[in-house]
Formats: sequence, C-alpha cells, structure tokens
Amino acid sequence: MPTPSENLAALGLELPNVAAPVAAYTPAVVDRGVVRTSGQLAFVDGELACTGAVGEGGTSPETAAQAAEVCALNCLAAAAQAAGGLDRLAGCVKVVGFVSSKPDFFGQPAVVNGASELFGKVFGDAHARSAVGVAALPLDASVEVEAEFALA
Amino acid sequence: MPTPSENLAALGLELPNVAAPVAAYTPAVVDRGVVRTSGQLAFVDGELACTGAVGEGGTSPETAAQAAEVCALNCLAAAAQAAGGLDRLAGCVKVVGFVSSKPDFFGQPAVVNGASELFGKVFGDAHARSAVGVAALPLDASVEVEAEFALA
Amino acid sequence: MPTPSENLAALGLELPNVAAPVAAYTPAVVDRGVVRTSGQLAFVDGELACTGAVGEGGTSPETAAQAAEVCALNCLAAAAQAAGGLDRLAGCVKVVGFVSSKPDFFGQPAVVNGASELFGKVFGDAHARSAVGVAALPLDASVEVEAEFALA
Repeated sequence: MPTPSENLAALGLELPNVAAPVAAYTPAVVDRGVVRTSGQLAFVDGELACTGAVGEGGTSPETAAQAAEVCALNCLAAAAQAAGGLDRLAGCVKVVGFVSSKPDFFGQPAVVNGASELFGKVFGDAHARSAVGVAALPLDASVEVEAEFALA
Repeated sequence: MPTPSENLAALGLELPNVAAPVAAYTPAVVDRGVVRTSGQLAFVDGELACTGAVGEGGTSPETAAQAAEVCALNCLAAAAQAAGGLDRLAGCVKVVGFVSSKPDFFGQPAVVNGASELFGKVFGDAHARSAVGVAALPLDASVEVEAEFALA
Repeated sequence: MPTPSENLAALGLELPNVAAPVAAYTPAVVDRGVVRTSGQLAFVDGELACTGAVGEGGTSPETAAQAAEVCALNCLAAAAQAAGGLDRLAGCVKVVGFVSSKPDFFGQPAVVNGASELFGKVFGDAHARSAVGVAALPLDASVEVEAEFALA
C-alpha cells in the first residue's frame, strides 16, 4: 500500500513550508497520539490565495473549494512538521471547515470538499467533518480549515 | 443502571438510519477511545426538518431547539454505527452547536439545549459545550451539531 | 521551573469562581488525559465584561482582546476544577476563539491573542488554534473561547 507521502507525490503535490504563526500559538501540537492543527488559511508562498465571502456576487464556490485544498495542504505540512514526517500520520480523523459566507450561501459542503478530497486521496480513508458558514475570517480569507490526525 | 439504549427507548425514541454523507467524509470516526461525529443537520427521513436563520422575523428559538434535538439523535446514530452500538458509548464529552443566527439573536444556548438535554437523558451525564451563532449553514439548516463521545 | 499556578500568581491573576452553566452541560470534562472546556464568555463576577460585534463602529479589537483574556482565565478555572487543580494541567493543546464580527472585520487573530498569550504565560508552551468571526454569540458576547488541555 502506498504511503501518504507517495500518494501526495502521485498527485503532483509537495508539502509547502509551514508559515510561522503571527501570535502565541503553533501550527500543530501532538498529544497522546493525536495531532491537532491550527486553522489554516490558503497561503501559497506567503500570499493568501483566495479572499472574500463566498456566494452570489462574491467568491465562487469553485474558487473557494480550490482554496480549501490549499488549506488542507497547509494542514498536512503543519501536522507533518509536528509529527516528524507525513508518514508518521495514520490518517485524518476530523476536519472543521469554516467558509466565509454571504447570508444566502448554503453550499459550504462543496467548498470544504476541496479539503476532504485531498485528505481522502492522501490517506485512503474518510474523516468526520463539520462545514459551517461564518461572518468573517482572518485577513478576509474565504476559507479556514483545521484538522486532527491520528499518529500511526 | 439503565443503558443508553434503554434510556433512549424510555424517551420513546429510536436511532434513525445514518444518512450517507454527500462528500469524501464519514458520519463518525473512532480513534483511541473517542468517537468524533460529523456535524449533523436535522434530517428526518431524508428531509431537513428546520431551515432559516433563527431570530426576530425568522425561525423561532423553540423550533430550532427541537431541530437541535433531531441533530443530536443523528449524532447518536452516527456514533453508534461507528462504535458498534449505542451501548458501546460511555458518555458524551463535547458538543459544539452552530446556530444560523440573525445578527441580533443571542439565544444560542437555549437552542443548543435541545441537543444537550437529549444527551443528558441518554447518558445521565453532562458534557462540555460551545454554542455559537453563524452566518449560514449547509442547505440553509437552522442548526448543526457535532459531538464527541467516549467509548465505554 | 515554576508551576502553572505560580505563573498565574506572578501575573497578578487568580482563578475566578466557575460559573454554573445555564443548561444541561458542564464547564469542563476530563477524558483519557484531555480536559475539554465549554466555550467561555468574558464573565467577571457574574457580569459579562464585553458585548457587541467587533469592528468599525462597534467594539474595538483591543477591548475584545482583553475580553479574550478573561475568557481564557475562565477556561483555566473550569479546567482546573475538573482536573483537581491548575497544576494537574501539563499545558494547553488547542484553542478555538469565536469573535462576534462585523462583516468587514478581519482582525480575529489579534483578538484571540488575548487568550493565547495568557495560556502561553501560564504554561510556557504554545497550542494549536483557530480564530473565526461569527455572526452572533450568546448574550451578545464579543468573544467566546474554548480550550483543550493535556493532563500532566
């Protein structure tokens, strides 16, 4: 069976550098076999890839789903750094996807699928998940994703 | 002491079927003695029982509290399926209740009580809980509830 | 190395009384070495210290950050009560900060720093964290903070 890092490479992806948090917290913490990540934004090389609330007249769900995949990749990088490598992770157990949403946008699940599908391809398993629409996110980000991983 | 399933039956309730998620995630995951559920909506027989933001001119808190109980029942069903039966659960340790809220609605705790009270009756214990008001939820749901249970 | 309670005292702070929840939940739960707190509001002696959405024309981020520190202190009190004392906690592993936000307020991280910095000073470590902007919080609170702590 291919490892998570082999699966990631097969997707043509590689782990980005982990951005330093702007405050008194850390990208991920390992405790008792569980790796909890901080909420990750869609940073690509230090630039936020997708901003604005999702919905009619705003950011499209498709664009936001791509941003959710970037958030997920940043979750993987943070968790891998904390755990000592991506292949130390057995799988993803929980995802919460926060989507900055216009009041009449109700398609949060399709947006957060951008993250869930990446985790599914990397680990070959499925996780529990909540997807919610929020009023605003840091730096006007469209999506924020946090995840919990199980150590192998 | 009655079992959780005896308590549920005494309330005149039974576990519903677990709805298949619409995406690359799963209703609940068991890891290291903790069962994490996905955020559950108030589906009854495949129909969403309660939609719209809660507050003045919208969905009433009482109606939304009933929906929160339905969400909680769906959490129990998801967790029971993942754990191999309701009586494999020792209790509920954490609930997050997301309430789609008009900007001047501040009664989220009473809404989420619909979920907390059901868990209290089924397990005879109390859990940690957060209740927050959000801009929008999937499918215009009024309430979404996620829970963590401890295995017996 | 100073203990958490010595660190707290050095800051000139003491643990407040734990407010009784208004519903069928409890301030904190210990399970398998993890202490999960309920979402805490900025209550000081039974009065909510800071209300209203944060942003232009509303509550200032600086005021809300002070409220987040109060929420964090209430998290510590709840966790200490459940764990049998503050010094039973080895550290904080996860924080979620919900900030009631006007739609154009994107400075949630600076607000939630009020909580993160207190945890950092008390435990001398850093935690994983998500900061999100929400539509409304219970009792019109400006901030709600939930935390997970690891038992020593």
